Amino acid sequence: MPDTPGTLMAAEIAEQPAVWRRLLAAAGPAGESGVDRAAALVRARAPRFVLFAARGTSDHAALYAKYLTEIRLGLPAGMVSPSTLTAYAAQPDLRDVLLVAVSQSGGSPDLLRCVEVARDRGALTLAVTNNPGSALADAADAQVDVLAGPERSVAATKTYTAQLLALYLLVSAVRGEDDARAAALPDLGDQVLDGCMDAVAAAASGYRFAQRLVTTGRGYSYPTAREAALKLMETAYVSAQAFSGADLLHGPLALVDPLVPVLAVVSPGAGGAAMAPVLESLAARHADVLRIGGHGSPGPGPGIALPQAPAEELASLLEILPLQLLAHRVAVARGGDPDTPRGLHKVTETL
Amino acid sequence: MPDTPGTLMAAEIAEQPAVWRRLLAAAGPAGESGVDRAAALVRARAPRFVLFAARGTSDHAALYAKYLTEIRLGLPAGMVSPSTLTAYAAQPDLRDVLLVAVSQSGGSPDLLRCVEVARDRGALTLAVTNNPGSALADAADAQVDVLAGPERSVAATKTYTAQLLALYLLVSAVRGEDDARAAALPDLGDQVLDGCMDAVAAAASGYRFAQRLVTTGRGYSYPTAREAALKLMETAYVSAQAFSGADLLHGPLALVDPLVPVLAVVSPGAGGAAMAPVLESLAARHADVLRIGGHGSPGPGPGIALPQAPAEELASLLEILPLQLLAHRVAVARGGDPDTPRGLHKVTETL
Repeated sequence: MPDTPGTLMAAEIAEQPAVWRRLLAAAGPAGESGVDRAAALVRARAPRFVLFAARGTSDHAALYAKYLTEIRLGLPAGMVSPSTLTAYAAQPDLRDVLLVAVSQSGGSPDLLRCVEVARDRGALTLAVTNNPGSALADAADAQVDVLAGPERSVAATKTYTAQLLALYLLVSAVRGEDDARAAALPDLGDQVLDGCMDAVAAAASGYRFAQRLVTTGRGYSYPTAREAALKLMETAYVSAQAFSGADLLHGPLALVDPLVPVLAVVSPGAGGAAMAPVLESLAARHADVLRIGGHGSPGPGPGIALPQAPAEELASLLEILPLQLLAHRVAVARGGDPDTPRGLHKVTETL
Repeated sequence: MPDTPGTLMAAEIAEQPAVWRRLLAAAGPAGESGVDRAAALVRARAPRFVLFAARGTSDHAALYAKYLTEIRLGLPAGMVSPSTLTAYAAQPDLRDVLLVAVSQSGGSPDLLRCVEVARDRGALTLAVTNNPGSALADAADAQVDVLAGPERSVAATKTYTAQLLALYLLVSAVRGEDDARAAALPDLGDQVLDGCMDAVAAAASGYRFAQRLVTTGRGYSYPTAREAALKLMETAYVSAQAFSGADLLHGPLALVDPLVPVLAVVSPGAGGAAMAPVLESLAARHADVLRIGGHGSPGPGPGIALPQAPAEELASLLEILPLQLLAHRVAVARGGDPDTPRGLHKVTETL
């Protein structure tokens, strides 16, 4: 373990564009990622409903994939409540269902149980992991390897965006598209990481003593808001709460005052446009708002600018980068070590 | 508007057992709640997948119904991300899908749009509201009236438990059961409200200056944890974060230290049993834990005892009562008025 706190996390954040390059190169018909084989299986079975099972950071990648599934595949989708299959031993009818389990380690017993029950109950099952030899990958009908390489920091970063990209490529392959839009991502990622450091440092300095924080976004940016909040919680021990922009207006807005900073992820397309009334409400409450992306759109406060993504659904990979850096910076400034947050282990085993 | 802060909310909390009696009386074949007619329609169409659309407090009632659907109906279920249908104009294939929209007012444009799109795309649609004349109720194939009477406090309380009970009765009716278990609830509700005031007052006094708080539960108690956190956010402006017990262990546990109080909802059955490792982890972190229910099970800290519910899935109605009272107490102690939280209106219109 290096002596400088957060060394591993910083290195893994910086490694992400390289991970994306590797994954893009491995996603073709002969590629080792398994994306094409999994997509072929999905096309052959033509599921009518999609369920996602995941925990923690992987749950946010799964939520991103839920949006892709509903919008780009035109299929209804849901997030599994694993306890229904484990604690309550439910035996649902899962014919015509695709169950996708997303897990960095492939090691959580409850997700393994979800896959086993789902197969047994008629679902096609797919494991998206960073560990092709894991029990989860073995148990599923097909697997996708996100090829992020060993992740040593407890706080997941590169495996998160690798999951996003793998799931994006999977959905494109299920649609039968040879989607070239993602090819521009690695260079854009490098551009973001190189260009945002000053803005991140300024923001981290501003949040040095914040104990509470709200993150928000809509559509494809809502998973980004969720993941940013989790990173801030698990590394910097901030009580960071994520809300979809619409849900924020249904109650939690009351807790936002000038003492609760808000990170608003404003994506370039429809999700970002839907944030306009949210930003207006926040301005009316004199909230301290930092916008991630969304430049050119009206709204309060300073922001962290991002380059134009090749597509709205790909902006999620770029938006999270400054937020990972921000969590790292705040954590280190507070004397913590984001590589080994208190009370956490790399593989969390829940039943 | 009465002069004493929180008068409306307190009266509506106290009214809940009476609301449940009314709803139970109206749930039979000739009953005005519409439960039986809706259940007959669901049985006739035999959906294979269930989607829920809701916001705010109603979203927690919908999450409760998702557990009921998966466990008691054996059907996979999901929560709609309304923006996929509104902002992104997705056109999913919803044949064989039941879409249930849950809304106190029946007045939010995005939920109305969800129902319209879902019908158009082949789903059977059902509106569960407290307003049978609402646009949402009109747009759906069938409606259930939760019969809570006018709710005047902005913070929803009686409509929440009325939604829970209506959804429970609906699921029982879809199963074709004449479920007598719920009949005991009103008397138990009175017993809880009468018996928990001292424990609630002590807890409220302890949380007077808390700015951050975590709530947790598993299974049927997870919606309770979510709703308790929302009540504390919108009335007392606490940064209250809810996690399923399993998700808490996947990262957010790091932010829990002795300065972040935890409200742990421990239900009497499988969900409560699954909380044992969560309570152990919290004890290891020397967390300040208040247990709601779960007496007889091992665990740290003091608690608010609850009478035995007729069934685990019905404990949700009892568990939320002391937590509603707690939010009210903390809000009033802080000089707020939970009847009219800052920045909120009774009907939130999101697009």
